[in-house]
Amino acid sequence: MNPVIELLKSHRSIRKFTDRKISHELLLELIQAGQSAATSSHVQAYSVIHVTTPAKREKIAELAGGQDYIATCSDFLVFCADMKRPTEASERTGANVVRGMTEQLLVASVDTALMAQNVAIAAESEGLGICYIGGIRNNPQAVSDLLQLPEHVYPVFGMCLGYPAHEPDIKPRLPVEAILKEDHYSDDREQVEVFDDTMHSYYQQRSSGKKDANWSRNLTPLFDTKLRPHMRDFLVERGFEMK
Amino acid sequence: MNPVIELLKSHRSIRKFTDRKISHELLLELIQAGQSAATSSHVQAYSVIHVTTPAKREKIAELAGGQDYIATCSDFLVFCADMKRPTEASERTGANVVRGMTEQLLVASVDTALMAQNVAIAAESEGLGICYIGGIRNNPQAVSDLLQLPEHVYPVFGMCLGYPAHEPDIKPRLPVEAILKEDHYSDDREQVEVFDDTMHSYYQQRSSGKKDANWSRNLTPLFDTKLRPHMRDFLVERGFEMK
Repeated sequence: MNPVIELLKSHRSIRKFTDRKISHELLLELIQAGQSAATSSHVQAYSVIHVTTPAKREKIAELAGGQDYIATCSDFLVFCADMKRPTEASERTGANVVRGMTEQLLVASVDTALMAQNVAIAAESEGLGICYIGGIRNNPQAVSDLLQLPEHVYPVFGMCLGYPAHEPDIKPRLPVEAILKEDHYSDDREQVEVFDDTMHSYYQQRSSGKKDANWSRNLTPLFDTKLRPHMRDFLVERGFEMK
Repeated sequence: MNPVIELLKSHRSIRKFTDRKISHELLLELIQAGQSAATSSHVQAYSVIHVTTPAKREKIAELAGGQDYIATCSDFLVFCADMKRPTEASERTGANVVRGMTEQLLVASVDTALMAQNVAIAAESEGLGICYIGGIRNNPQAVSDLLQLPEHVYPVFGMCLGYPAHEPDIKPRLPVEAILKEDHYSDDREQVEVFDDTMHSYYQQRSSGKKDANWSRNLTPLFDTKLRPHMRDFLVERGFEMK
């Protein structure tokens, strides 16, 4: 295993950080490494808000459901899908511009994710720890207001960065045989059962036998109610109309 | 700059490959490196179809708009957002399951992109070249039929992998000052103008002064008509109803 693959495989989310701060030079380096990721038709449909005001970070921590590390990590970034910049640039050349297509939502969201994952890896290569914060989608309108996001920009997720103050276990993943399928989609129920056993042992070991959970059962809160039911109206309001 | 950041910054899309094949062991290693990426609530909402039948690869090359390298690269992967596995696993535990939420489309698409970007970096760390293929969304239903994708699974993008037979220039990116914004969204029109000049020089230099293009003007085909207008109905048909 080469050192880069080793680094990728050692990922875990970090939620406790030392007081050491990331230098601004390093932060710029991480963002530029992010920008080197592939981008659909060179559109670069993303912006990153570096949230520096403590009060804003505390507010976002609260809006994301009480995730304190948003306020306490060295740097907190909000990755936004940004169709404002490219559509307005196109318009200024005199082109007719159609907005609000479903495809544009996908392009911008995927572009943002590819870019962010490069930032995460660059950060980890420098000994930093990171944690993605999907919880900003709990209250995406309030987050957008706080960051003064204009139309055609939406916050996809946040990211905490800092020097790690703990070293959590690496969480197992589904067997590769479930994920990688040869030539066509195939059933993976058997591998899911194997994985449920893996996760059951993992939780048992970490809780001295107290946590009786597995992967399938842990998914309940994700699916048993309407997950973030405001997202559709929020995106439409932002100009991502999913036409 | 550390070697990992150097690797990230040296990314370019590779579309010409030598005849050398990627070993199956290495392919598995790349996918496992992919799986180590962060995943929303541990849901791992993705599957990867390794397309091995030559006729299928030729068909996909055609469906993606005549991208021959899909057929000629060592390995071609289709990255799919997969909500079938987790929702069915949850259902088997007796949980009530709600499908088709907009948020679920975002979670699965972002999960897939983070995972794929790790695969891309792992591949590049092994001296391979890669090219994302968004063009599979030109005819996503035909691609889905070909790969026998079930409901609640949709193909987000493809990826060509192989040993590079060319070394294209690294394409410039927007100034970091346009992307990284302090504390709130801010206008970046000035940086876009700088970047238009950068891209103009880049195209002039590569075409011996013949290509009179810049970033803003190149965006026209992305926005002047309804981009992939079938995507909405396709996703709804797949079970991603964007409720």
